[in-house]
Amino acid sequence: MKIASLDQLPSIPMQMEGAVGVLKQVPVGKDDGSPNFSFRVFTVEPDGNTPYHIHESEHLNYVIHGEGVLVDIDGNQHPVKAGDFGFVEPNEKHQYRNTSATQALTFICAVPVQYE
Amino acid sequence: MKIASLDQLPSIPMQMEGAVGVLKQVPVGKDDGSPNFSFRVFTVEPDGNTPYHIHESEHLNYVIHGEGVLVDIDGNQHPVKAGDFGFVEPNEKHQYRNTSATQALTFICAVPVQYE
Repeated sequence: MKIASLDQLPSIPMQMEGAVGVLKQVPVGKDDGSPNFSFRVFTVEPDGNTPYHIHESEHLNYVIHGEGVLVDIDGNQHPVKAGDFGFVEPNEKHQYRNTSATQALTFICAVPVQYE
Repeated sequence: MKIASLDQLPSIPMQMEGAVGVLKQVPVGKDDGSPNFSFRVFTVEPDGNTPYHIHESEHLNYVIHGEGVLVDIDGNQHPVKAGDFGFVEPNEKHQYRNTSATQALTFICAVPVQYE
């Protein structure tokens, strides 16, 4: 059993090409012995974004704080805000953008452990 | 791709023996085509609780609202509050209790889709 809050967890910059101002934390994952999937948390600084990219793993998301858009495979922007859940299918091109100039966008991004 | 908030989703009482005042929603799951795991959300009314039970699936949790305790396999009570993450290992007996007399306890409980 593990209980943790974000302020207790290390935070590392997302190094992936196309990422702008993104920090990553892993509240629950393979280091905790999670057998199937991981909870990662990304914090996107104002006007930052995750890469506009595609991969074979799905994303299950929950927006903890802030607001932004989830860009779909056709480039359409779908508004998201704190309290919203998101699902990105396998092989669906996507991107999270923080549309606020002042506040961070923080969201859970759950993936199978092998993609943690 | 799917985006949804809790107020857009149906809510059904948790029927499991031992559950007291628990409602269930499924923001992302098998009906959305999620291939590996599901985000369920449980809302426990004041002084309510989930069953004190054991099962082979793990739980990955995030507390959206409220406060309570996560009871472990030895009966020890660990405080949890909005913003906390939790991990319950496979075959680890556990229970969530809402310790507030006035406000709901709402948390994400992610499981493999076959246990949705």
